Amino acid sequence: MTNRKSLTEYVSAFTHSLMHLGITDVVISPGSRSTPLAYACMKQEGLTVYRQIDERSAAYFALGMAKASGNPVMLLCTSGTAAANYFPAIVEAYYARVPLLVVTADRPHELREVGAPQAINQINLFGSHVKWATDLPIPEDNNLLEFLARHLHRSVAMAKTEPKGPVHLNVPFREPLRIDFDQPFESRGEMMHFTGEFKLNQETETFLQGLLQKEQGLLVVGEMTAPMPQEFWQFIEDLQWPVLADPLSNLRANVKLEHQHLIIDSYDAILKSEAFKAAMAPEVVIRIGPQPVSKPLTLFLAAVKPKTYVVFDESAMMRDAQSVVTHHIQSAAKGLWQLPVKTRENNAYTAKWQQASELYWQLMEQHCEQELDEGVLAKLLFDELDECHLVVSSSMPIRDLDTYFQTTDRDVVVYANRGANGIDGVVSTAFGVQAAAKRPTYLLIGDLSFLHDMNGLIASKMQETDLTIVVMNNDGGGIFSYLPQSEEERYFEDLFGTPTGMNFEDAARMYDTEYSSAKTKEELVQALRTPKQKAIKIIEVFTDRQQNVKVHRKLWNRLSEELSK
Amino acid sequence: MTNRKSLTEYVSAFTHSLMHLGITDVVISPGSRSTPLAYACMKQEGLTVYRQIDERSAAYFALGMAKASGNPVMLLCTSGTAAANYFPAIVEAYYARVPLLVVTADRPHELREVGAPQAINQINLFGSHVKWATDLPIPEDNNLLEFLARHLHRSVAMAKTEPKGPVHLNVPFREPLRIDFDQPFESRGEMMHFTGEFKLNQETETFLQGLLQKEQGLLVVGEMTAPMPQEFWQFIEDLQWPVLADPLSNLRANVKLEHQHLIIDSYDAILKSEAFKAAMAPEVVIRIGPQPVSKPLTLFLAAVKPKTYVVFDESAMMRDAQSVVTHHIQSAAKGLWQLPVKTRENNAYTAKWQQASELYWQLMEQHCEQELDEGVLAKLLFDELDECHLVVSSSMPIRDLDTYFQTTDRDVVVYANRGANGIDGVVSTAFGVQAAAKRPTYLLIGDLSFLHDMNGLIASKMQETDLTIVVMNNDGGGIFSYLPQSEEERYFEDLFGTPTGMNFEDAARMYDTEYSSAKTKEELVQALRTPKQKAIKIIEVFTDRQQNVKVHRKLWNRLSEELSK
Repeated sequence: MTNRKSLTEYVSAFTHSLMHLGITDVVISPGSRSTPLAYACMKQEGLTVYRQIDERSAAYFALGMAKASGNPVMLLCTSGTAAANYFPAIVEAYYARVPLLVVTADRPHELREVGAPQAINQINLFGSHVKWATDLPIPEDNNLLEFLARHLHRSVAMAKTEPKGPVHLNVPFREPLRIDFDQPFESRGEMMHFTGEFKLNQETETFLQGLLQKEQGLLVVGEMTAPMPQEFWQFIEDLQWPVLADPLSNLRANVKLEHQHLIIDSYDAILKSEAFKAAMAPEVVIRIGPQPVSKPLTLFLAAVKPKTYVVFDESAMMRDAQSVVTHHIQSAAKGLWQLPVKTRENNAYTAKWQQASELYWQLMEQHCEQELDEGVLAKLLFDELDECHLVVSSSMPIRDLDTYFQTTDRDVVVYANRGANGIDGVVSTAFGVQAAAKRPTYLLIGDLSFLHDMNGLIASKMQETDLTIVVMNNDGGGIFSYLPQSEEERYFEDLFGTPTGMNFEDAARMYDTEYSSAKTKEELVQALRTPKQKAIKIIEVFTDRQQNVKVHRKLWNRLSEELSK
Repeated sequence: MTNRKSLTEYVSAFTHSLMHLGITDVVISPGSRSTPLAYACMKQEGLTVYRQIDERSAAYFALGMAKASGNPVMLLCTSGTAAANYFPAIVEAYYARVPLLVVTADRPHELREVGAPQAINQINLFGSHVKWATDLPIPEDNNLLEFLARHLHRSVAMAKTEPKGPVHLNVPFREPLRIDFDQPFESRGEMMHFTGEFKLNQETETFLQGLLQKEQGLLVVGEMTAPMPQEFWQFIEDLQWPVLADPLSNLRANVKLEHQHLIIDSYDAILKSEAFKAAMAPEVVIRIGPQPVSKPLTLFLAAVKPKTYVVFDESAMMRDAQSVVTHHIQSAAKGLWQLPVKTRENNAYTAKWQQASELYWQLMEQHCEQELDEGVLAKLLFDELDECHLVVSSSMPIRDLDTYFQTTDRDVVVYANRGANGIDGVVSTAFGVQAAAKRPTYLLIGDLSFLHDMNGLIASKMQETDLTIVVMNNDGGGIFSYLPQSEEERYFEDLFGTPTGMNFEDAARMYDTEYSSAKTKEELVQALRTPKQKAIKIIEVFTDRQQNVKVHRKLWNRLSEELSK
C-alpha cells in the first residue's frame, strides 16, 4: 500500500521539477495507472496540459510541439500497449533529433509479467530509439525527492543535449492511486544547470578559411528548425556562394529581398538536366543540417564526388547516405558563419545557378498558367501563405514543396517529419506545431497520410486550435506512380495505388470542421481566401494520379530542354 | 545492384516456403521497399493477401486472424516508422501468445542509420516482445535458398511452439526492387517437420489424481481459443466440480444442455457477496488458461489462499498476479482430462454454487425487465447471437460479457484482446477474426475504443467482410466511473471521462456502412434484427455513464442481499 502523503509529495516534486527545468507542456492520454502524475500535472501552475485519446497521435502531437518550440514536451500515458503506441513518434523524434520526455506509468514490480492486466515489460520498451531509459522507484519513501530532482534534471539535460532526442522515464505506482490535493508542498532538491558549447578549434578554422577562398563552392542547407541570425546572412553575402536551401531549411521564406538572390530554391528541378549537371561540378561543398529532400541533388553530389565535402553535424552519427562526405565537423554550424570571410562582389559560378533558377521560375509561371495538377495547385497554396506555419506530409507534399515553393519575404515557417520520413502521425504533428506556434497553421497532406492519422483530429475536441488542412486526394498512393514499380501494371493498384474511393466530407462533419472541396485553381483560391469560421478548415483537392505524373514530367522536360541550349 | 534473377528466385522461394509451412494469409501495407516480396505474395498460389493502409490496424487484423485460426499470419510492411506501427499489436500478441510472422522490409546495410530516408535501426526493433528476431541476408546469392527455407522453418516453428507468439524477420532489399514475373521457379530446400508434445509424467498424474478425490474443488478456466473436446465434458461430469468459466473460455456457448449445470458463469457477481465468499472457500483449485477477467474471483482466491492451487501453463512464465499459485504444471492442459476420475453423482459444494447462480439469473431477469443501462442492453445483444463470432473490447465490454453472458447452447465463439488488455486495435482485431472465421461476426465496443481504431474500417474498402459493430457510446471512458478516482470530482472529466461529444453516424457514412442508433431496448432489438444489407452494420447505442454505474450497483446490491439471507 502506498502512503498517500509520500505519493503526493513525490508527484508534486515531479511536476515542480519539470517547471524548474523549463518544461511547460504535457500531453496526457486517459488511463488509470498514471492517475497520480496526471493529477499533479493538472494541479501544477504553469504547466499546460493537452489531451489526446489515441497515444500514437498524442506522441506525434508532442513531437510537433517540441519541434516548433525546441523545448522538450512531456508525454504521459498509462501502462500496457498505450505506451507501445508512442513508438512510431519516438522513432521519428530519435532520428529527427526532437527532445521528448516520454513518461509511462507502470505497475509495481510485483505485478509485472505475472499475468496481471495491462502489465507488459516496459523496461527499455523503446529499445535503441531513445537516448536514455530509466525505471524510477516506487514513490514510497520521501528520501527519494532529492534523487528525483536530479534524475529529472538528467532526463531533461539528456533530451536537450545535441543530438537532441527522446528520453523514457518508466514510473511505477502502487495502489491506491489518489493524491491529497490539499497537501502543502515544499520544494526541495532542485539543482542548477549550466552547459558549455562546442566551438571550432584553430585547426578547423584555418582549414575552413582555406575552403572559403574557393569560387566554385556550394553551401547546402538541410532542415533547420530555428531561424538563421543576421550574421548568417552577412556571411553568405560576403561569400557569394549559391546556397542550396532545402524546403525545410526555412531559408526560402522570411528572406529579405536583398538576400534572395543567393538562395537557390530550384536545384531539385535544375539538377534533373544532364547538361546543367555536367557544367556545374563544385570544388567544395559545405553542408549544414541533414541531407536535403532532393534526390537529384543527392545523385548529383554522389556522381561528382566532391574532393572536399564538409558536413557540420553535432552528432557522431554523421548523416551521409551516399558515403561521399570527406570531412565531418562535429560541432554546431554557427562556427561557420562566425568565421571572417573576404568579401566577394560576385561569382561567375553562382551566376550560372542564378540564371538557371530564373529560367526555371519563368517556365514555372507559364506552366502554372497552362497546366492543372497537384503541383500547380500546391503552388497556389504556397503563394497564398503569410504570417503562418506550414506543415507538409512526407511522400508527395514535401516534394511539391521542394519543386513549387519559391523564395519569399512572406512569413511562413515550415516543418515536416523527415527523421524517418513516415506518412504517419502528420495530422497530429501539425496540431502540435500549431499549439507551440500559437498562430494560424496550414497542413498540406495526401489522402493516405490524412487517413492514417485522422485520429489526430480528436485533439480539436479537447483544446483550441487554428488549422487549415489541404488534403490532396488522388485516391491512393501518389508517389508510387513516380517509381519504377509503376512501369509494371500487374498488382500495381492492389499493392501501391491502393485506392479507397473515400472522401473526407463526412470526416469533416464528424469532427465539426469547415469543409470545402476544389478541383480547379479558382476553386482552391476561393476556398483558401474564404475567411475561416471554425477551429479547423478542411479543403479537399481532388486530383488524378496519372495526370500529376504527366504534368510534373512536362515541366521537367521543358526545363531540361531549355537548360541544354 | 541486385540481380533480378537472384531476387526473383529468393522471393519465390520465400513465398513457396510459406505455403509449405502452412501459412495461408498475408497482410500487406503499401510501401516501396517491400515490393519484391509483396509481388511474390500476390503471385503465390494459395496465399491470400489482405491489405491495410494503417500498419497499426494491419497488425491487429493479423492478430485477430491468427487468434481465430490458431495459425501464424504473416505481416509485411516497408521500412521506417511503418514497422514501428506494428508494435502495439506485437506486444498484445506476445502476451496473448498469438503466432505472428512479422516481416519488415529494410534498406540494405549501407543505407542504415546514415541519414538515408525511411531507414531506421530495425534490428531487434520489437525488443523483448517477440520470441525471436533475425536479420536476413541481401538476396544476391542463389546459394541462400536452402538457408532461407530452413530459416523460415525455424521462424514458423518458433511462432507455433508454446507459448506461441510473434517472430520478427527483417528482410533487406537492395535496388532495383522489381522481380521477373515470368521466371520459372523450381522448389528447393524445404524440410519436413515433426513435433513432440509435453505429456504428464507418472508423478504428476499421481499427484493430480489425489487432488481430484477432493469434494471442495474448483476448476477455473481462463481464455481458450479452441473448443474443448468431448473428453473434457465427460471429465467434468465425472468430477462434479463447479467449472468457473471465464467469458473467453468459450465454455459458455456451444454447450449442450446436459452439461450446462456444471458451468458457473455468474461467479463475478456472486463473489461480490461477503457472505457467499465466507462459506465457499475451496480445498483445491485447478486453473487452466490465463487468469480470468473477474476481479472478484481474483480477490476471492487471493483471500482464500488455497492450500493447493494448481496452474497448467505450458510456459515457464506462469501467470499468477497475486502470487497464490502453489503448483505449476508446465504442460498442455489436456493431460488433465485424460486422467481417470472416479464418477461422482453429485456434490454438495457444487450444489451451493449452482443455487447461487440460479438465484443470480432469476434476479437478472427481473433486473433486465425493470432497468435500462449499458449492461442490460449488452445482454440483449448476447441473447440474440447465434451462429456467429463475437469480439468484445477491453474495459467495460469484456466486463459486461462476464456479467451478462449466460451459458447457452447457441453457437457463439468469443474473442477479446487480453494479453495486455488494451482498448487499441479492437476494430481491426474483429475484422481479422471475421476473415479467419468466414462467418458473421459481432463486435461490442465502447466509444473511445472505437475511435482509437476507426482506421480498422479501412479494411472493409479492400476486402469482403461481414461485421456488425455495436458501439456503446457513453461519451468517454466509462470504466473510470467504477474506479476510486471517480470519488474525486476535480479533473475527473478532463483526465478520465474525456468526453468528445462525438457520434459515429458520419463515420458510418464515410465508410459506407449501415447505421442505426438505439437508446431503448426495443430500438436495439429492432436494429439487431433488421436484416443486414451491407458488409458492415454499425449500431450506436447511447448510454449514460453515471446511470450505468448506478444500475450495475443496484444489481450487485440486490444479489448480495439475497445471498446473505
